[in-house]
Amino acid sequence: MAERGFFITLEGGEGCGKTTQVPVVAEFFRKRGFEVVCTREPGGTKLAEQIRAVLLTKDPDEDLCDKSELLLMYAARAQLVETLIKPHLAQGKVVISDRFDLSTIAYQGAGRGIPLAEIAALRQVAIGDFAPDLTLLFDVPVATGMARMRARGHADRIEQAGPEFFARIYHGFMDYAQSHPEQVAIIDATGDIAQVSALVEQTLTQRLKL
Amino acid sequence: MAERGFFITLEGGEGCGKTTQVPVVAEFFRKRGFEVVCTREPGGTKLAEQIRAVLLTKDPDEDLCDKSELLLMYAARAQLVETLIKPHLAQGKVVISDRFDLSTIAYQGAGRGIPLAEIAALRQVAIGDFAPDLTLLFDVPVATGMARMRARGHADRIEQAGPEFFARIYHGFMDYAQSHPEQVAIIDATGDIAQVSALVEQTLTQRLKL
Repeated sequence: MAERGFFITLEGGEGCGKTTQVPVVAEFFRKRGFEVVCTREPGGTKLAEQIRAVLLTKDPDEDLCDKSELLLMYAARAQLVETLIKPHLAQGKVVISDRFDLSTIAYQGAGRGIPLAEIAALRQVAIGDFAPDLTLLFDVPVATGMARMRARGHADRIEQAGPEFFARIYHGFMDYAQSHPEQVAIIDATGDIAQVSALVEQTLTQRLKL
Repeated sequence: MAERGFFITLEGGEGCGKTTQVPVVAEFFRKRGFEVVCTREPGGTKLAEQIRAVLLTKDPDEDLCDKSELLLMYAARAQLVETLIKPHLAQGKVVISDRFDLSTIAYQGAGRGIPLAEIAALRQVAIGDFAPDLTLLFDVPVATGMARMRARGHADRIEQAGPEFFARIYHGFMDYAQSHPEQVAIIDATGDIAQVSALVEQTLTQRLKL
């Protein structure tokens, strides 16, 4: 077992198929002898899941303001990093998270229009320089992702924001990925599940030399 | 009625008697023809009260980390300012809050040891330059406040942190007040309720020229 494990995040817009690939990533590492812990954001610990519940509350009389949403995201992230991710990594385990900081850059930054400098200021307080070893960004065109969402038939507060919002989010993800190629691997997620899984395994092998 | 109301905050350590004085402050303004809205922190709106519930959760298996606590405080504050305080002030009302930003400086800053520069960074994102017109800081010695707490017989997560913690908080409040004399009025809160109420009314009259 490695002295320090790997922290791998899966990112992308709604309907990109990332959640389906979490077990594929987990199996990749288990086959190579690692213990694996899977989590998700926002949430992943009891208290962070309570914060998630606030984020997903739909109240007819009160909208959560954009700044409060952003602060809650980082509150949940600080709690997850401190109580779950760092302790497991220190034990040599692999931690896989379904969403992490790049989702905040895309949703609250590009989507809601909060300046990236403000997001960076909160990140610095919340988690300092802690970052994933590798981020897999699942790339599907916005229209494809929206169609998959509709087929799935579920929508929460964030999902009701409209098509322009999702177009901004898409560009938020891609802009970050293109300017941080060593941290983010873009996975073509337009194919079927088996095709995407094969790309995931290939990317992990190449990027992590495993 | 004024074109813009006043935002007045009451601050101080546990057992300082500030909550008892909220109606006194409210009555002071009502007598002068203002509509008054009273609130409290963390909380004061439905969603901010949900955040308060997370802050007050006692979980045997998971402690809320200091950074998450700080971020939740500002999430609740951003929501309260945006959805309650600013709209009421814009209508010429007086808003009175039992605790506000100075409690974060004292509890999370001086108490938990989070650098004031980090707190300032979050404040800037959460509420920008928004600040009270006047803060009343209720000053009782730490030992007096602790004795009043014990007499009250209730303790939550924050209240269980021990006497040194409360000594640091006391100095956090006083240091800020002494370096911001135009924003913060220190009220001697060692007397009985009527004595403290008289000091409150006198201070409001002098400070606000009302």
